[in-house]
Amino acid sequence: MVGASKPASNALFLEDLQVGQRFSSGFHRIDEAQIKAFAAQFDPQPFHLDGEVAKATLFSGLVASGWHTAAITMKLLVESGLPLSGGIIGSGGEISWPKPTRPGDTLSVVSEIEEVTPSRSRPDRGMIRVRSETRNQRGETVQVLIAKLVVPRRTTAALAT
Amino acid sequence: MVGASKPASNALFLEDLQVGQRFSSGFHRIDEAQIKAFAAQFDPQPFHLDGEVAKATLFSGLVASGWHTAAITMKLLVESGLPLSGGIIGSGGEISWPKPTRPGDTLSVVSEIEEVTPSRSRPDRGMIRVRSETRNQRGETVQVLIAKLVVPRRTTAALAT
Repeated sequence: MVGASKPASNALFLEDLQVGQRFSSGFHRIDEAQIKAFAAQFDPQPFHLDGEVAKATLFSGLVASGWHTAAITMKLLVESGLPLSGGIIGSGGEISWPKPTRPGDTLSVVSEIEEVTPSRSRPDRGMIRVRSETRNQRGETVQVLIAKLVVPRRTTAALAT
Repeated sequence: MVGASKPASNALFLEDLQVGQRFSSGFHRIDEAQIKAFAAQFDPQPFHLDGEVAKATLFSGLVASGWHTAAITMKLLVESGLPLSGGIIGSGGEISWPKPTRPGDTLSVVSEIEEVTPSRSRPDRGMIRVRSETRNQRGETVQVLIAKLVVPRRTTAALAT
């Protein structure tokens, strides 16, 4: 029983989750230096690296790599946006970027549980589908992520310890 | 006409792409320090941060954040794996991680064009769907990304300059 009470009191097991449940994350402000540093390492394209050059591109100015928006979204989910027992472990999902993230934007994530499915073969866990919308300070959605996550079940976690 | 000859000679326009065409990227070796640095910034969970703690988790050892694998995949695509004129500009896609990336893995990406669709409303561009498999040094697939990308058309690019 010690194991069952070990996770933080707000960490949720599969039994605690239901379709329609919503969670809100904290905030992350992104600036030009962060955008350029991420891009230099992982997405070295002119519209992520150089504001002047970026003006003449499709984006009409410096924008963050979509993968940078995804990484910040993950940080927000891990730190505050999705308090799952066992952490946030995803097998994949769908991602889209309806609008670019720009320097000075403050991002936050609203997540909604879309599906909860106990595993048939593994009684200690289940899968959930979560829709996470990353929004800027104007309420515009810059990323939609629909992720499939593995979540442990409380009952078996307690029995196993 | 100067504009039309400006992109690198290997940069491809929509007219150069066809279903079934394949591209291979260079290589990126990931180590423990990279995994921990990315995780500390964007995915601070024990199985990405601490090899000892990670042994007791679902992963049985330190693994890279899936978003780190995605970011390295993007770097490989931009630097060598997908020589598109105008760069790699995605509106979204599907992503999955069939296996984790571990310290010491050397990743590379094989991409295949799955669909080429000229835009009806914008004669200067089109969309392609590309399947990019990120593989480790044992040939195991650690990520599958099916992305929708915007690609400029040569004809109109030349006319516009």
